[in-house]
Amino acid sequence: MHTTVAHTPAGEEARALCERHLEGRGVRIADIAAIVLDLQRPFVPGLDVAECVESVEAVLSKREVCNALLTGIALDTLAERGALPEPLQSTVLHDDPLYGIDEVLALAVVNIYGSIGFTNFGYLDKVKPGIVGLVDGRGHGPERCDTFLDDLIAAVAAAAAARIAHGHRDTR
Amino acid sequence: MHTTVAHTPAGEEARALCERHLEGRGVRIADIAAIVLDLQRPFVPGLDVAECVESVEAVLSKREVCNALLTGIALDTLAERGALPEPLQSTVLHDDPLYGIDEVLALAVVNIYGSIGFTNFGYLDKVKPGIVGLVDGRGHGPERCDTFLDDLIAAVAAAAAARIAHGHRDTR
Amino acid sequence: MHTTVAHTPAGEEARALCERHLEGRGVRIADIAAIVLDLQRPFVPGLDVAECVESVEAVLSKREVCNALLTGIALDTLAERGALPEPLQSTVLHDDPLYGIDEVLALAVVNIYGSIGFTNFGYLDKVKPGIVGLVDGRGHGPERCDTFLDDLIAAVAAAAAARIAHGHRDTR
Amino acid sequence: MHTTVAHTPAGEEARALCERHLEGRGVRIADIAAIVLDLQRPFVPGLDVAECVESVEAVLSKREVCNALLTGIALDTLAERGALPEPLQSTVLHDDPLYGIDEVLALAVVNIYGSIGFTNFGYLDKVKPGIVGLVDGRGHGPERCDTFLDDLIAAVAAAAAARIAHGHRDTR
Repeated sequence: MHTTVAHTPAGEEARALCERHLEGRGVRIADIAAIVLDLQRPFVPGLDVAECVESVEAVLSKREVCNALLTGIALDTLAERGALPEPLQSTVLHDDPLYGIDEVLALAVVNIYGSIGFTNFGYLDKVKPGIVGLVDGRGHGPERCDTFLDDLIAAVAAAAAARIAHGHRDTR
Repeated sequence: MHTTVAHTPAGEEARALCERHLEGRGVRIADIAAIVLDLQRPFVPGLDVAECVESVEAVLSKREVCNALLTGIALDTLAERGALPEPLQSTVLHDDPLYGIDEVLALAVVNIYGSIGFTNFGYLDKVKPGIVGLVDGRGHGPERCDTFLDDLIAAVAAAAAARIAHGHRDTR
Repeated sequence: MHTTVAHTPAGEEARALCERHLEGRGVRIADIAAIVLDLQRPFVPGLDVAECVESVEAVLSKREVCNALLTGIALDTLAERGALPEPLQSTVLHDDPLYGIDEVLALAVVNIYGSIGFTNFGYLDKVKPGIVGLVDGRGHGPERCDTFLDDLIAAVAAAAAARIAHGHRDTR
Repeated sequence: MHTTVAHTPAGEEARALCERHLEGRGVRIADIAAIVLDLQRPFVPGLDVAECVESVEAVLSKREVCNALLTGIALDTLAERGALPEPLQSTVLHDDPLYGIDEVLALAVVNIYGSIGFTNFGYLDKVKPGIVGLVDGRGHGPERCDTFLDDLIAAVAAAAAARIAHGHRDTR
């Protein structure tokens, strides 16, 4: 640790920053909340979209989530501009399934609400519903790279679902 | 670390021990290999069941996998006998979805071949195909507890699939 | 997930349960707080023991922390009574350094406040200051087994230190 | 997963790539091996530096290790050139202790040989012996950024030490 430190955002500032960066990549909080609602509705009777939006926003206000999101989106954007050194440039641009570092960042996000989020993350990353599939499917090529983004969205949705699962039980 | 240590098995000894404990709970290596084949067939043309059996056996020969499996099965068995202290006894016996420690042990298994196994683990744990569903569905009650076992089987299958994915690329 | 679930504690109930189980093994919250104070004092001017006690209690009120603690202490206690099946019984009783599952449970605890706790956990687990060393050193044998407990205490201290590090910055 | 994939290196190719990138940042394999020797000598009588070099090289030949190393070094280098978007640029350049993503990549490396490497990683990251301290201490500023590199070196050393611990027992 060093005494001269930069400012990494948390709380409301982190949430706003995440929201802005996600919107810059065409992803709205409502899109992620829709996935959370589908995931948790079978287990939480009466769950509505407003509670899911609130849960996604709570996840995005965590410092480590924000840092993972900013780092992943930066790597995607740099790959689009050809600004990464080879062979990393090709690996990220073509979303090599054996790269693994996109999953590593996603797991740091999922971890925030404990291990029960892992199942949902894996499921979303495989089935790719809603905005996850849309981001994953819009192509990997010189103009577009979302290697990190689809995993990170799935991770935020999985964490928000885990947060609801914990909270629902806690308020009984 | 201590100088007087017990012997934790690895290699062929670990594999044999895992196989014996799995069979004691009604799970055969062939059942797990069938799931691996379904997972990886779309990505690996010509993959056959023999290669999947070999991959499951390689996973089961890893020391940390064997230790996770023995620990999880011991906790399931102790819960069946009512031998765990409360409130842990009730938590494990009823497979409380917020317990989380079953997923923690499973993740230690998945980790062995890097982060690309997480997606398959989550998918298997949610969709519960073949032996995973059979184990999960055979009931949780005074006579039967498989709280850890279904997650561990899914984790072994996910790790074996990741191992094939890595190896297939490596042999090019 | 199943519809009939047991009750896993969280919040104040979890904290009280953890405290009782720790005291049953000779560990007081003040002992853990003392380690947290030593860890964070160089980085947080004016930090006092009351704030460290509060942070340890906050960590112990998390459901996943409580579940990890209850599971680890149960395995230690069962090993003392010779109630685990072999070869797990010998592995746990003799604290085999290659067992690894004690670290796996500890990491689930450390994870709760993100990745910055890992450094402190590893340091505490190696240097074994205060209560960590006392628990680790009181012997492994037929009458006494603390294979999980020393790692779990180090993990709780590391998580409480990470929580203070995050909070100190957040309140600026 | 996508059918058109880039080539991520593994095996001998990965090792050579890692070695070149490390040397480009002033780190030699012998420097890392020296740390491994200090870590494991108390536990492995007769351990010599050649065996430690071989273990470090084995770690560097793993695909996920190579990908983590290339990604971390790329982020360090981009930060030196001011090429990251804000606020990430400031966070990485000044090695903010609450960033956390450097530890996340390091943990992906440590994971490769199971959970027993975590203790050594945390210890090295805190005590910063040899090359870890040298890299950490050479300053963070407009011309120099090693935010990821010091954690990654500590992680490679910890993984190589865990590999020796496992292997030493396995060959008995």
